[in-house]
Amino acid sequence: MSHPFFTYHGPISIDRVFKLLNKKIDISSNLEINDVKDLSSADQNSLTFLHSNKYKEIAKLTKASYCLTTNLLKDFLPKTCKPIIVENVLMATSIITSKIYPNSIEDIFDTKVKNIEQINFKNNVKYGKNVLVGENVDIGSDCLIGHNTIIEKNVKIGNKCKIGSNTVIRNSFIKDNVSILDNCVIGKKGFGFFPNKSQNLRYPHIGIVIINENCEIGSGATIDRGSMSNTEIGKNTFLDNQVHIAHNVKIGENTIIAGQVGIAGSSTIGNNVRIGGQAGISGHLKIGDNVDIAGGSGVIKDIPKNTKVMGYPAKNIREFLKENK
Amino acid sequence: MSHPFFTYHGPISIDRVFKLLNKKIDISSNLEINDVKDLSSADQNSLTFLHSNKYKEIAKLTKASYCLTTNLLKDFLPKTCKPIIVENVLMATSIITSKIYPNSIEDIFDTKVKNIEQINFKNNVKYGKNVLVGENVDIGSDCLIGHNTIIEKNVKIGNKCKIGSNTVIRNSFIKDNVSILDNCVIGKKGFGFFPNKSQNLRYPHIGIVIINENCEIGSGATIDRGSMSNTEIGKNTFLDNQVHIAHNVKIGENTIIAGQVGIAGSSTIGNNVRIGGQAGISGHLKIGDNVDIAGGSGVIKDIPKNTKVMGYPAKNIREFLKENK
Amino acid sequence: MSHPFFTYHGPISIDRVFKLLNKKIDISSNLEINDVKDLSSADQNSLTFLHSNKYKEIAKLTKASYCLTTNLLKDFLPKTCKPIIVENVLMATSIITSKIYPNSIEDIFDTKVKNIEQINFKNNVKYGKNVLVGENVDIGSDCLIGHNTIIEKNVKIGNKCKIGSNTVIRNSFIKDNVSILDNCVIGKKGFGFFPNKSQNLRYPHIGIVIINENCEIGSGATIDRGSMSNTEIGKNTFLDNQVHIAHNVKIGENTIIAGQVGIAGSSTIGNNVRIGGQAGISGHLKIGDNVDIAGGSGVIKDIPKNTKVMGYPAKNIREFLKENK
Repeated sequence: MSHPFFTYHGPISIDRVFKLLNKKIDISSNLEINDVKDLSSADQNSLTFLHSNKYKEIAKLTKASYCLTTNLLKDFLPKTCKPIIVENVLMATSIITSKIYPNSIEDIFDTKVKNIEQINFKNNVKYGKNVLVGENVDIGSDCLIGHNTIIEKNVKIGNKCKIGSNTVIRNSFIKDNVSILDNCVIGKKGFGFFPNKSQNLRYPHIGIVIINENCEIGSGATIDRGSMSNTEIGKNTFLDNQVHIAHNVKIGENTIIAGQVGIAGSSTIGNNVRIGGQAGISGHLKIGDNVDIAGGSGVIKDIPKNTKVMGYPAKNIREFLKENK
Repeated sequence: MSHPFFTYHGPISIDRVFKLLNKKIDISSNLEINDVKDLSSADQNSLTFLHSNKYKEIAKLTKASYCLTTNLLKDFLPKTCKPIIVENVLMATSIITSKIYPNSIEDIFDTKVKNIEQINFKNNVKYGKNVLVGENVDIGSDCLIGHNTIIEKNVKIGNKCKIGSNTVIRNSFIKDNVSILDNCVIGKKGFGFFPNKSQNLRYPHIGIVIINENCEIGSGATIDRGSMSNTEIGKNTFLDNQVHIAHNVKIGENTIIAGQVGIAGSSTIGNNVRIGGQAGISGHLKIGDNVDIAGGSGVIKDIPKNTKVMGYPAKNIREFLKENK
Repeated sequence: MSHPFFTYHGPISIDRVFKLLNKKIDISSNLEINDVKDLSSADQNSLTFLHSNKYKEIAKLTKASYCLTTNLLKDFLPKTCKPIIVENVLMATSIITSKIYPNSIEDIFDTKVKNIEQINFKNNVKYGKNVLVGENVDIGSDCLIGHNTIIEKNVKIGNKCKIGSNTVIRNSFIKDNVSILDNCVIGKKGFGFFPNKSQNLRYPHIGIVIINENCEIGSGATIDRGSMSNTEIGKNTFLDNQVHIAHNVKIGENTIIAGQVGIAGSSTIGNNVRIGGQAGISGHLKIGDNVDIAGGSGVIKDIPKNTKVMGYPAKNIREFLKENK
């Protein structure tokens, strides 16, 4: 139940959920909610949320006992799941999640880091000058950590990893034989908030960053951690310099991403995809396996597998080149 | 008269102005010039400059006693303002300004910083390891300053601000409750110079960066200070990672700017504007309130308020999507 | 013969070349290969490589004694140069080069740096706090090195240079009066590798970065070193913030490159070129002298000198603006 990284302040009673949302308690219950989870991973002791009819098929199968939703959507839920009607589902979800994981809202710099020399690593780790390491950090054997790099709390690094200098990492799982070059920021909260006059309301980021075996992350890259799910990069995927990967993005294996590419939140990129320099991919898209995206393209819709695209908006590359001779 | 940040080497006599510009003194005067200012903010003891007929209406009302200008433009000045005719108005302005504020040309690293532990802040400030602080720095209460961050000279930070790690700030006013994340560079001189064979001539940057209440600045962002005016970001405006804001840009309140956006020098962005990832805005443009700019767009002309645009060059979004089905 | 920067593990016998490539020795020879060089710079003791018929004219004139090539291309070689037939010329070249310069594959952080205070510079060098300097580093007189900056091994810096804070430099020649601002990464290996299921194979980067007199490099820039040739920036060329220059790129003199521009590998940019913000230039292109590339453009073919281009793909600017009124 408890999250590997963010301090758990649950469980929370259904009564308290109603109070936090400024709602009259219209369901009598002494159930304790252990966690907030999405529709498919929720269990009987979870609160889930349904904010769009895109998810109606998944909603029918949820095992959650309670669901934050709207009047229009509530009928998609099974009888075992009681709706809690709210005006803004995502904002309500954010309010409850932030009570259960209060540390997942803001990224305060890690005040408990120590100089790596004060820590007794059993493993063979070579490190530079002025390396700082937070609590709940595990570093495998034969790793190299460059100068001035800060491994803040909640980081697990595998064996044979090479981390450059001036890099900041937090809330991340780095698997074996990964290279992360200089001046990167990995695992910070994503750019997710509810716009609100005079003071925006940030929503929680309880996801982490997972970088799988044999990946390389170029200099100056930023990879944000997920909000309700993880940001994940598949095995042997290489990112060039100054790439930006937003929260909840999933990238497959053996994919190659050239310099200054940006991938917006919650998009999924397949295996063996090649993305040219400065290309941009909008949020919530699905890019299939073996897709080639030409440099500079702007992708604003899903791309089926085995396709080559170019342009803004990106289209079939032959068509684009014919129109732009 | 004296600038809050840059060491003042004025006043400067009109005779010396002529000498610095290699001109014969054709105006007999013992007036001392206190400052170089733009046409509308100049007073009787200021030198001003007029380099384009776009400013002829403002020129008629200037209170300056002297104006650097060309033969073609001099007749737009009122009788109270004597023209000093030069070939290149901006270069002449640069030469005089750099005599009055010689430290505003180059950004030499601040050699007088101390480790923050040596400074006695009255306020409650939590700081990381290896934080450096220069002269003329003020930090409000309940602030957090991350590891390896350098607050160089001439910075005022309000209350409840959160500054990340590996960030460099100089010549800036940061208001209350602002977050600046990791690896940012705030307040350096802008990319402004006169191209010149064998050695370009930089012009002074006596503007500062002002970041108003409740803003958030993402990781890896760069915000340059202004040349003759300030670079300013309005209240509750959020910038994502790797955004670049050039000198003299003004951004309104409650605006949202996604990752890798670039805004070129001297453009003005309204309130409640939303700019998608990787969009670029050319210099000297005016983007009205409530404008939506789609990700990847290239904006090359002014955008009226309440408009949605997309494409390169950016145009009405419906028109763009119809043409690009 | 020996490279100024990368530890030399040659010479290597022709017999060993065959073994390393898993080939039967079909040429009897006791020649020792001193180096791997391109077709035109190779001498009698070099191994060269020919992987495309684009280079057939240069191939005819090579002075190398041996050449890695394919069955189809071998007949372009002169009789003095014996072909070694391989399936993948570039991968074979990579394998041999990495045996001669084993340190040119990976950029392990420099474990031998010292704090600059421990080094006795004869010259007048002003430096910040926590500056680290590796072996084989030479810094000229009147230089300024900002806080937390890491000059790793194999760097020669001229006189009157200004290096900012939080910057990492390795394997580079920086000539006189160059400014490199904060948070840059200069001289790391480029984004070059042979895609390979489960683990990509990186090829060597034995080139360096050369930045000539009077250049300025903006904050957050990344300039990668070359693979078989150098990455070079001509005199008095200015780069704005967050620019990315890939491996083997050559940029001329007096060129101006605005913020967030990206130049892909092996492209050549002329003198007096102006490139607007966020423009991208594909790899292996030739951009002539005095070319203007509008901000946001995507250049995918060679641009002749004295031309103004705009758009994606970039075309004549008048044509582009007429089509996009």
